[in-house]
Amino acid sequence: MAVYTEVTDEALAEFLANYAVGDAIAFRGIAEGVENSNYSLRTSAGDFILTLYEKRVDPADLPWFLGLMEHLARRGLSCPLPVAGRDGQALRELAGRKAAITTFLPGVWPRRVRAEHCAPVGAALATLHRTGTDFLPTRANALGLAGWAPLLDRCRASGDDVQLGLIGELDAILANILARWPCDLPVGHIHADLFPDNVFFLQDKLSGIIDFYFAATDILAYDIAICLNAWCFEPDGAFNATKARALLGAYHAVRPLSEAERTALPILCQGAAIRFLLTRLYDWVNTPPGALVTRKDPLEYLRRLRFHRGAKDWQAYGI
Amino acid sequence: MAVYTEVTDEALAEFLANYAVGDAIAFRGIAEGVENSNYSLRTSAGDFILTLYEKRVDPADLPWFLGLMEHLARRGLSCPLPVAGRDGQALRELAGRKAAITTFLPGVWPRRVRAEHCAPVGAALATLHRTGTDFLPTRANALGLAGWAPLLDRCRASGDDVQLGLIGELDAILANILARWPCDLPVGHIHADLFPDNVFFLQDKLSGIIDFYFAATDILAYDIAICLNAWCFEPDGAFNATKARALLGAYHAVRPLSEAERTALPILCQGAAIRFLLTRLYDWVNTPPGALVTRKDPLEYLRRLRFHRGAKDWQAYGI
Repeated sequence: MAVYTEVTDEALAEFLANYAVGDAIAFRGIAEGVENSNYSLRTSAGDFILTLYEKRVDPADLPWFLGLMEHLARRGLSCPLPVAGRDGQALRELAGRKAAITTFLPGVWPRRVRAEHCAPVGAALATLHRTGTDFLPTRANALGLAGWAPLLDRCRASGDDVQLGLIGELDAILANILARWPCDLPVGHIHADLFPDNVFFLQDKLSGIIDFYFAATDILAYDIAICLNAWCFEPDGAFNATKARALLGAYHAVRPLSEAERTALPILCQGAAIRFLLTRLYDWVNTPPGALVTRKDPLEYLRRLRFHRGAKDWQAYGI
Repeated sequence: MAVYTEVTDEALAEFLANYAVGDAIAFRGIAEGVENSNYSLRTSAGDFILTLYEKRVDPADLPWFLGLMEHLARRGLSCPLPVAGRDGQALRELAGRKAAITTFLPGVWPRRVRAEHCAPVGAALATLHRTGTDFLPTRANALGLAGWAPLLDRCRASGDDVQLGLIGELDAILANILARWPCDLPVGHIHADLFPDNVFFLQDKLSGIIDFYFAATDILAYDIAICLNAWCFEPDGAFNATKARALLGAYHAVRPLSEAERTALPILCQGAAIRFLLTRLYDWVNTPPGALVTRKDPLEYLRRLRFHRGAKDWQAYGI
C-alpha cells in the first residue's frame, strides 16, 4: 500500500501541460506497490498510471527502466508504455520526485494462483526474454549474486532473533550457492520480480506485466527460478509440481532451455530463494514491531530453499 | 491509505455474478479512506467503486448510509449511487466483510484548498441538507455532542503527554460547549466529514461528494461548522475570512440561515473543532510511535478552537 508523495492539483495540472493527454478527470492513489507512489489517472485522452519514484529507486536507473519498457511495449509485449511529453521526454519531475506517466493495462492480478495461471506466465516470461535481446543498454543486478553476501552481513546482528541458528545455516547455504553458481548461461534482461501482483489476467488470459523497477541484466534462467519460487509453492509451503510443469513447459516452448540451463535450475532456484529470504529478513529485522506495514515472513523462503537443495535437476520441477 | 481486506479473483467473480455489471476488467486497491477497503473496479459495464466495510463501521448502520446515498443520488446530488444486484439488494458479503458497489464519480479532490473551491462546497452542502429532508430514517450521531465527554475520558490518561495542561484546558472548554450548545436549531441529515478529500472537482466545478460513512442526523448548521474548520484555515493555522465568506454566503443563498443558526455558529464551530481534536488525540495516544501511518496533529484543532472562542457571531466568519 503506497502513496508516499502527495501531488497538489496545481502541480498536477502544470505537469500534465507537458503532455498532449488533456486535463485530469480522475486522480486516485493506488494502494499497491511498495517502492513508489502510484496514481490512477484519467484524462480526457484515456487512462494512465502516474508514478512518482521514491527513495529506493536510483534516479540514474530510471532511463534504463523506461527504455526497456518502451522497447518491450513497442514490440508487442503487454507492459506499460511510458508516455512521452511534447518535448519527447517520458521522465520529468513532479512534487520533488522523478515522475513518469505510463499507459494503463487492463486486468486483475491473481490473489490466489491456480495452475491455469502458470503456463501463461512461463510463456510471457520467455517472450519477455526473447523480446529484450535487441535492447542494448545493460543494468547490473544490484540484488543479484554479488549482492547477497553484503545483505546477509547486514542481517547478521539480529537475524538469529528470527530463528536460532538461521545466520549459520544461511552462511553455509550461501557459500555453497556462490561456489556452484553457473557463469556460462545465456544472459539478458530479466524482470527479476515477476510475482503474482505484477501479472494481470482477464478471464485466465494474461493481459499484462507491470513493475519493471527491479529489472536488470542477468542470467535468463535465473528469472525462471524467481518465478518457480513465486508461483509454484502453496500457502502451506508445499511445492506444486503441476504448476511448475506448466510454467517451465510453456517457457521451454517459446524459448527452449539448453542442457546447461536445465541442469543449473536447482542452484538458480536456491539463489532466487535466498535473494527473497534476505531482503525479507532485512526488512523484518529493520521494521519496528509496532509498525502497521505487513512484514513478509522470511522463513517461507527458508522452506523453499531447503526444497531446492534436495532437487537434482529440472526434473525435480515437474518435467 | 487503506486496503485492509484482500479479495481473491474467484471471490470477486462470484460476487460480481450477483450483479448485471459484467466481468472485472480492472481491480485495484485505492490508497485513500482510512475506515474501509476501497477498490477501483472496471467491468464491461463501466467504472465502479467496491467498498468492503471494516471494523470501525457498524454493519447495522450500513442500510442507512446506503439508503441516504441512494436518496440523494436519485434526486440529482452528485454522490455515489449504490448499485443493486439482481436481487434488488445493494449490500451483501465479500471476503468476510459487508460490501457494496457504488458508481464511480469523476473528479479530483483538492490537495490545496483555494478560495474558489469554497463557494461550491457551501452550495453543495446546503443542497445536500435540503435534498435530505424527505429521507425519513434517522441515525444518531455517535461522534456528536453526547460522544465528546466519553472520548475525552479515554484520552485522559496520556493526553497531557501531547501537551502539558491539554486535558485541563479541554475539560474547561468542553464544559462550556455543553452548557451553551443550542437545542432548538433545525435538524436533518448531515455529512459530518466534508473535508477536502471527500469533495471532487473538475476544472474548479464541484463534481461530486463521497464518503457518507460518518453521516448522521444532527443540527444542520453543525455541518457548516465542520466545513468552516475543514476548508477555511491555512496550513499555518490562520483563519481565511475570504474562504469562509464564500462558503457561508453560497450556503445561505441555497438554504438561508435563521438568526438563531447565525448566532450559534461560533459555539457550533467550537463543537466541530473539539470533535476532530478529540478523535485525533485518541488516535495519537493510541498509535504506536513506530507505526508508519501518519498521525494527524490534534493540536491543529486546539488553535482553531481558540479562534472560535474569540468569535462573537457569524460575522467573525467573514460575513
